[in-house]
Amino acid sequence: MKVYLIGCGPGDPELLTLKARRLIGSCDVIVYDDLIPSAVLQWVPPGIPRHYVGKRAGRDYMKQPEINSLLAELALQGQTVARLKGGDPCIFGRGGEEALFLHDKNIPFEFVPGITSAIAGPISAGIPPTHRGMAASVRFVTAHEDPSKTSGFLDWKGLAAETGTLVFLMGASRIVTIAEKLMAEGMPPETPSALIENATTPAQRQVFTCLGEMGAAAERQSIASPCIIVVGQVASLGEKLTQRAPLSGTSVLLTRPAHLSEASAALFAAAGARVLSYPLVDIAPLDFDLPQRGCYDMFIFTSQNAVTIFMDRLFAGGYDSRFFAEAKICCIGPKTRDTFKNYGIKIDIMADE
Amino acid sequence: MKVYLIGCGPGDPELLTLKARRLIGSCDVIVYDDLIPSAVLQWVPPGIPRHYVGKRAGRDYMKQPEINSLLAELALQGQTVARLKGGDPCIFGRGGEEALFLHDKNIPFEFVPGITSAIAGPISAGIPPTHRGMAASVRFVTAHEDPSKTSGFLDWKGLAAETGTLVFLMGASRIVTIAEKLMAEGMPPETPSALIENATTPAQRQVFTCLGEMGAAAERQSIASPCIIVVGQVASLGEKLTQRAPLSGTSVLLTRPAHLSEASAALFAAAGARVLSYPLVDIAPLDFDLPQRGCYDMFIFTSQNAVTIFMDRLFAGGYDSRFFAEAKICCIGPKTRDTFKNYGIKIDIMADE
Repeated sequence: MKVYLIGCGPGDPELLTLKARRLIGSCDVIVYDDLIPSAVLQWVPPGIPRHYVGKRAGRDYMKQPEINSLLAELALQGQTVARLKGGDPCIFGRGGEEALFLHDKNIPFEFVPGITSAIAGPISAGIPPTHRGMAASVRFVTAHEDPSKTSGFLDWKGLAAETGTLVFLMGASRIVTIAEKLMAEGMPPETPSALIENATTPAQRQVFTCLGEMGAAAERQSIASPCIIVVGQVASLGEKLTQRAPLSGTSVLLTRPAHLSEASAALFAAAGARVLSYPLVDIAPLDFDLPQRGCYDMFIFTSQNAVTIFMDRLFAGGYDSRFFAEAKICCIGPKTRDTFKNYGIKIDIMADE
Repeated sequence: MKVYLIGCGPGDPELLTLKARRLIGSCDVIVYDDLIPSAVLQWVPPGIPRHYVGKRAGRDYMKQPEINSLLAELALQGQTVARLKGGDPCIFGRGGEEALFLHDKNIPFEFVPGITSAIAGPISAGIPPTHRGMAASVRFVTAHEDPSKTSGFLDWKGLAAETGTLVFLMGASRIVTIAEKLMAEGMPPETPSALIENATTPAQRQVFTCLGEMGAAAERQSIASPCIIVVGQVASLGEKLTQRAPLSGTSVLLTRPAHLSEASAALFAAAGARVLSYPLVDIAPLDFDLPQRGCYDMFIFTSQNAVTIFMDRLFAGGYDSRFFAEAKICCIGPKTRDTFKNYGIKIDIMADE
């Protein structure tokens, strides 16, 4: 019985931690939010129940008290719960609230930190949040203020006097307001600024601007949520240091069976492409009888699927690799050959095509 | 030719990202710093050169310009360079400086964000850096000011007026000064505070205190570097939410051969133990002749090492799993049996002991 409050990073599934990856693969049940990289859900083992508690377009969030109760209920059934959140669970992620609720019910929990988009966002646009001689501090601010407060919760005067870096999260709809409030409190309009939309995903876009032109720039480029707003001298480094991945702006549709496309998907995504998995082919075993052992001189395999399906059948029939003792094995293509390595077999003949 | 500026997280090797793990396993050369989790270096493939550029006890850092030049030189040799840093490369990590140098030399580079101890430190002590109704912002500050500035670089008045959370990095030697400066500028002495030493490692210690007593508490507990200082209302949550791992405070010495102890080490570390790998046994193959195929009725294997060594020898001799066709295979212990699964063999007889 334990609840892991797990940060799933800013968007790129490779930015999850090893610990998050391990826990997702070994928990009893998943409770997940919006802004989880979609690839992450593919890592959930088959048969593990998943509870979606985020916001569907146009409808409300599942209320926080309901989420808290769900977590407690699942844990009290004796299950190990992986509670997945975007970014870090405790940077505007309400992880503290869920932890307090669990603590009051004597339910063990653990925070598993994740990469917050407040850091990975600027970095992915070439902006170091701190920089020697330029920013000795960085401040993360939520642009959604606490609605229970009637007066302003944020100290805009203090923010406007900031000599380090300001990073606003969840501010896409308030870009104009933020710029106006900072300038009204005396921050110079020429302060370098940047907007980063869909940070660390293949859909990422960034706009380098200044405080005085930030609102207009956002409108011109139709910047939408999720968006990170950076204000401060370091934003001026972005134009120099931003790196364009070779396939950025490209969309790739993968039509292979899902279980075979993960490796290709990772390669395309690492090169900056937007990858859509849309399997047009499914591989299913035919019903076939195993041949009699020792009756054939050669077995020819034409694909890795043929190898795994045949071997599965072999094992199910009580045999193993020794089945092939009296025969030669021929394969077409290096992948097919390599698949046999997993079964302790060095094939006899390899056809190139 | 590329330099990856890689954040290696706060200390716990499981808090590296999947991307950092992949790059460490596939680069041509490593350049690394202090405060890298030591387990990380075990992931560097054998034969890959490693350049240490950190600080050895008592001696100076390798100067930043020398590090920059080394990175450029290695990259210009056509190598893929993994530049490993503790935490995140751009949160007080000088990643921006290295990137600018590489950019000016037209050398491709990429930031790979890591979990900063500024977030994981508080979290590991049960302190959410932001918390609804308690802290709508969090600010990271380096306690080492830029020595090139003659006047104070940090705006202490602004820091003291902070209504959110303050997190000081690299401040172990300046705890008293920090507390005094904040109080001198009007921050109340009763402001909740926490000190977290060796965050996310098995040697972690934390002290929950308040601003006015922080200096005395640090001295009483002999708090030393590396240490994260948290100041703000959220620090009061730590005493409730801090979780003690079952083996925390325990040291475990593993005497198995290094390549076999990684899994056990991870289990002990995950339970909070300090793990020392000190192999007292090494497994090396004897020089032996392969038996004639078909001359034996049974092969008995007593350990997984015996299986892998015998199979390696078999493959080297041009054979594969079909070698055993005329014989039965007997194993002692489930690990030995499972090792044969990797060779496509379902053993015939299993002895329990």
